[in-house]
Amino acid sequence: MSRFLLFLLLMLVFLESYAQSHSHQGMRALHYPNIEGYVTLKTDLHQHSVFSDGEVWPSIRVMEALRENLDVISLTEHLEYQPHKADIPHPDRNRSYELALDEAKEHGLLIINGSEITRSEPIGHSNAVFIQDANKLLNDKAEATFREANEQGAFVFWNHPAWYDQSPSGNPILSDFQKERIEKGELHGIEVINTFDYAEESLALALKHNLTIMGTSDIHGLIDWDYLEKGNHRPITLVFAKEKTLESTREALFAGRTVAVYNSLMVGREVYLKPLLKACVEIKSAHYIEDTQIARVVLENNSSSDLTFENQMPYNFYSTPPVFTLRAGESKTLNIKTLEELDKLTLSLKALGAYTAPRTQPVIDWEITLR
Amino acid sequence: MSRFLLFLLLMLVFLESYAQSHSHQGMRALHYPNIEGYVTLKTDLHQHSVFSDGEVWPSIRVMEALRENLDVISLTEHLEYQPHKADIPHPDRNRSYELALDEAKEHGLLIINGSEITRSEPIGHSNAVFIQDANKLLNDKAEATFREANEQGAFVFWNHPAWYDQSPSGNPILSDFQKERIEKGELHGIEVINTFDYAEESLALALKHNLTIMGTSDIHGLIDWDYLEKGNHRPITLVFAKEKTLESTREALFAGRTVAVYNSLMVGREVYLKPLLKACVEIKSAHYIEDTQIARVVLENNSSSDLTFENQMPYNFYSTPPVFTLRAGESKTLNIKTLEELDKLTLSLKALGAYTAPRTQPVIDWEITLR
Amino acid sequence: MSRFLLFLLLMLVFLESYAQSHSHQGMRALHYPNIEGYVTLKTDLHQHSVFSDGEVWPSIRVMEALRENLDVISLTEHLEYQPHKADIPHPDRNRSYELALDEAKEHGLLIINGSEITRSEPIGHSNAVFIQDANKLLNDKAEATFREANEQGAFVFWNHPAWYDQSPSGNPILSDFQKERIEKGELHGIEVINTFDYAEESLALALKHNLTIMGTSDIHGLIDWDYLEKGNHRPITLVFAKEKTLESTREALFAGRTVAVYNSLMVGREVYLKPLLKACVEIKSAHYIEDTQIARVVLENNSSSDLTFENQMPYNFYSTPPVFTLRAGESKTLNIKTLEELDKLTLSLKALGAYTAPRTQPVIDWEITLR
Amino acid sequence: MSRFLLFLLLMLVFLESYAQSHSHQGMRALHYPNIEGYVTLKTDLHQHSVFSDGEVWPSIRVMEALRENLDVISLTEHLEYQPHKADIPHPDRNRSYELALDEAKEHGLLIINGSEITRSEPIGHSNAVFIQDANKLLNDKAEATFREANEQGAFVFWNHPAWYDQSPSGNPILSDFQKERIEKGELHGIEVINTFDYAEESLALALKHNLTIMGTSDIHGLIDWDYLEKGNHRPITLVFAKEKTLESTREALFAGRTVAVYNSLMVGREVYLKPLLKACVEIKSAHYIEDTQIARVVLENNSSSDLTFENQMPYNFYSTPPVFTLRAGESKTLNIKTLEELDKLTLSLKALGAYTAPRTQPVIDWEITLR
Repeated sequence: MSRFLLFLLLMLVFLESYAQSHSHQGMRALHYPNIEGYVTLKTDLHQHSVFSDGEVWPSIRVMEALRENLDVISLTEHLEYQPHKADIPHPDRNRSYELALDEAKEHGLLIINGSEITRSEPIGHSNAVFIQDANKLLNDKAEATFREANEQGAFVFWNHPAWYDQSPSGNPILSDFQKERIEKGELHGIEVINTFDYAEESLALALKHNLTIMGTSDIHGLIDWDYLEKGNHRPITLVFAKEKTLESTREALFAGRTVAVYNSLMVGREVYLKPLLKACVEIKSAHYIEDTQIARVVLENNSSSDLTFENQMPYNFYSTPPVFTLRAGESKTLNIKTLEELDKLTLSLKALGAYTAPRTQPVIDWEITLR
Repeated sequence: MSRFLLFLLLMLVFLESYAQSHSHQGMRALHYPNIEGYVTLKTDLHQHSVFSDGEVWPSIRVMEALRENLDVISLTEHLEYQPHKADIPHPDRNRSYELALDEAKEHGLLIINGSEITRSEPIGHSNAVFIQDANKLLNDKAEATFREANEQGAFVFWNHPAWYDQSPSGNPILSDFQKERIEKGELHGIEVINTFDYAEESLALALKHNLTIMGTSDIHGLIDWDYLEKGNHRPITLVFAKEKTLESTREALFAGRTVAVYNSLMVGREVYLKPLLKACVEIKSAHYIEDTQIARVVLENNSSSDLTFENQMPYNFYSTPPVFTLRAGESKTLNIKTLEELDKLTLSLKALGAYTAPRTQPVIDWEITLR
Repeated sequence: MSRFLLFLLLMLVFLESYAQSHSHQGMRALHYPNIEGYVTLKTDLHQHSVFSDGEVWPSIRVMEALRENLDVISLTEHLEYQPHKADIPHPDRNRSYELALDEAKEHGLLIINGSEITRSEPIGHSNAVFIQDANKLLNDKAEATFREANEQGAFVFWNHPAWYDQSPSGNPILSDFQKERIEKGELHGIEVINTFDYAEESLALALKHNLTIMGTSDIHGLIDWDYLEKGNHRPITLVFAKEKTLESTREALFAGRTVAVYNSLMVGREVYLKPLLKACVEIKSAHYIEDTQIARVVLENNSSSDLTFENQMPYNFYSTPPVFTLRAGESKTLNIKTLEELDKLTLSLKALGAYTAPRTQPVIDWEITLR
Repeated sequence: MSRFLLFLLLMLVFLESYAQSHSHQGMRALHYPNIEGYVTLKTDLHQHSVFSDGEVWPSIRVMEALRENLDVISLTEHLEYQPHKADIPHPDRNRSYELALDEAKEHGLLIINGSEITRSEPIGHSNAVFIQDANKLLNDKAEATFREANEQGAFVFWNHPAWYDQSPSGNPILSDFQKERIEKGELHGIEVINTFDYAEESLALALKHNLTIMGTSDIHGLIDWDYLEKGNHRPITLVFAKEKTLESTREALFAGRTVAVYNSLMVGREVYLKPLLKACVEIKSAHYIEDTQIARVVLENNSSSDLTFENQMPYNFYSTPPVFTLRAGESKTLNIKTLEELDKLTLSLKALGAYTAPRTQPVIDWEITLR
């Protein structure tokens, strides 16, 4: 009878997730599978509220994140840019964090204390997350602010290096200040996707200087207006953590275990992006069509990104062109003309929307048993 | 004042086409641009009605074609397979053509007299279109049927060479019979797309034996059920004709001026596919974003196929990944980081859903003036 | 353990129906609940194929009916109007019925042999369904045809009495011929809904002359084009039969146990329409909102018709206007301000889209227990 | 030539409005026609921002209103309930108004200075709009606050009288305090629709005590989440003003020239609701169907409310049931069986979603010329 109850429980979980994934609400909810050894955390670590130049109370940021099924967020208010200061004098710069923490306390959403260090070029903008006290970061000297953040144990990343307001060519320029921060181990990550922009040059910098690859929304207004109603999800950073805790998130960020995702675009180090893509596609069934040498393989995309693949096998498809898209949450049947009946087959596909380096897309292999 | 009337007329035409392209009805209507020197005719030259093994009266085939905005169709009833013969004895095998002709007479749709020559392997199935009299094609000897079709001036093409019902590996096998027909100049085309299937091997045969590339629906039931309600359009053959007449269509088919299209898939000889893709994308505007070296170029896809491109330029995009999709009928802004301000720019994109040979996608160049 | 298997089975049935009701396919499928003592059969007893002036093979009519989840259909080819006769000479006028029967044989759809008796005014058009042999109905004298149909046991109904092609005022005129048929018991039903038209005058005739109320599609082209793509379902007749058999259907038609339905419009005798509406709305839960005198009642519409109701209670609603719509297949919460806490409540609503007589809408009562 | 330019301009205006009304953005935009002698202003005079218990900066309220095409709004922060006071101490209670004013200054949106007077029962909640200085309303004695608001020229209305948090039966209770305010002319309006709730008892109070009928959103979170994503528009008050100015709006409110609207629900005094409904439906064409006595009348609903009507004429419809819905922004053809050919016809319909008194729906007449 306990077996029956277990089954009942499983059915309810299934029904819930089924209903959720098919509901309007569910359309917003982001899902990405875990990879071997890690849980995949959906994070957005660059956001603003009325406590700097944003237009909503921190509670809205928490509710937006819950609706999109995020696991971890940080409100990174500008330390130096405070347009609402006349109305919100707030002596304590941790206030936005505290309000978000309070709003999130009955949900599973983790909140990181963070701040944006906002200077003009050549210092530019950076985010420090996992700080202990934002107030102590207030300092005229940027060097001192970075030092303090690091002393607090912060993970620090360079914001929108390719933003043409700061760099008119749209190419990030690594300043002496930033080089020094990297050398001193005070700058750990770089936004490769910010708002709508994926910058290939920023990816090159990440790889060259061993910086963690980040994707963030940098939201000031409403996620609904800036992203969802245009048919987009916000950019996020998938963090591969040992468990869903703040400490594990921090450890993973320092270890560089991330993939930046924006809709169907995925950018990350090969060592994490390939297992992620492999996990995103599940082989649901595989067998030969009777009396043929055509293997019928059913794939399911259990991520929230549409995945466009290009056939890399020596075999052709029946009924599917060599370039095809497996839509988020949907299944697709590939008929593979193997010429003779095989026991095993390596499905080999290039992920055209995924990048491990500028203009470099990974090829993913799935081992398939056919008998 | 006549200028005013001309303008009024143009506006009405515009409004009509605007309304049409945005209406539900318009969702079905297919549009592809003309290319230099030719009008682009949307054709489906492989269809069935109750006069062979189809399930609708010929009038429905005409109405379906009008709703999808086709220019030319042919009802190619099986000469040898007549499952409804007990109810429709029809001594005259041109009857289906005549009924379609009558239904279409008040519309711009052109109807070609055609028949399917239906034999088991190794002869297989072929369509003869532009015949004069289907009755004369009835002959026990397939050689005689092909000869008669050719004597009537027919354009003859090989149907679904990769169909696994006929070839269990899904690979087309060119029989001696077919080789002989090709050598004698009695077989002129080959279906590279039939129903849902694009066969790369059929494309290879088309190129090797200089056969015209064809795409057809082979519809028996309802276009709505088999294609539209699944989110697909039927496969068609775009024919590049000197004018929209039957004679020009025939001339173009014999000259091999075609591209087979199925949704976002386009298959054709480079000499026609490249100009088609170039015409499908119109540069609506191009200028530098003020105070930057980023060229803002607005593209419009004036075709009914979603076009997925990959950047082939030495320059990167701002806000758009290197692989992107320009949806059917929609516009998109590309921001190109040219590093310095240029007077002219060659936009160079690989069309990932288009094939000029197996696994070979064309790169298209658009010359853009920036000042 | 058998309990476990039973549960498993129930879950699968539930999942299946859940998936079906939420799928695209499911959008077409019509559902209406049974009423006390009867199964509710969804029927369309007036349709045409290529065997008279329709445009599809009988198989398409069967497939359309299966997609809309109908229980019983009849192909009622015109006996006298045969525009395709040159191509389909068919000496046997039961042929369309036989082909439909063959197509339906592996499905649960019941096929009735029927024919349309087609004369100009004052005789007009009628359908005879449940005939034994259509050929014997061919007779120059309409009286003889009606007599023969009745001798075969047919249920005969008057088609589109309000059709303005036959009656330019759009008002049905009962001719002497028809009066005589009714008096002799040879005419048993009347179409109150045909194609898009509900005729109030036809309902009046049904009530006055005790004729069975019918609704039919009278389809000639495609159900998809004429109804579904316009956002409509075809008109049907709900038949309240003792069981789902042909004989029970016939018995129910003669007994007048029907409701004609077209989208949100329902027309029938009060004795059947009221129980139907009552069954269409299920009370899912009912309790007082804590610390208030407001009863929260959850209704579910388990039919495929949107139901618009007007409050007839002495109590007002909280959050819902007195006129409201309960959409097909959806739930809605009514908050009823009962002024004091009650043990029982009679929910009393007028069904604004339902007619038991011209301009006469029924009031339905549901007894609700609140504690 | 100037005629040509005029035409060009008109076409552009048309195209713009056409595109707007068909775009996603346009789906939000509310439209209601003017009535004889007045412009129809779309207003929402009960809203909150972070300056009381709302969750957004005032700028978001302005942007929401612009997206829904409102003409006039007021941010009515609670004078007495200030949960964010620790963070936003704001000594000046006009601050929210000033920030909204600044945000709106480049748009046509009018901003009214207002405040919510927030007391427990029996005083309850009221809004004072058109105040000069919110700070002066801060007073322990509610009588003094009302007096001050009135001395400042404010229009004062009673909020959500039927809210069950304040009145557990969901029935508004007019307290002695409120009676006194009405007698003294210090309370001028009453919310008949607040959030999702239309209270018939509040309408009765409005009529009995000659209070202006109001509908408001009372929004605290996001309009998108609370209304739009559920398929609703926010409740608004249509104000019939002599011109689109603040002063005219105020004059109209005091004169009681309003209709409260929530989706398809319209509540107002007959003298304003009837002309509004009449203006909402435009007769686009009217003529007899050839050779019939059936008048074909094309109606267009140029409002953003779906309008459900019931035929009140002695004539029946062809193809349309007596109760039908004319969707927002759409057209519908009514075929009216006038029995003989008429020169003129009075189309007479009851508006089932409109109320001039509890459970009292108006009948609207349109005079139609048929020749």
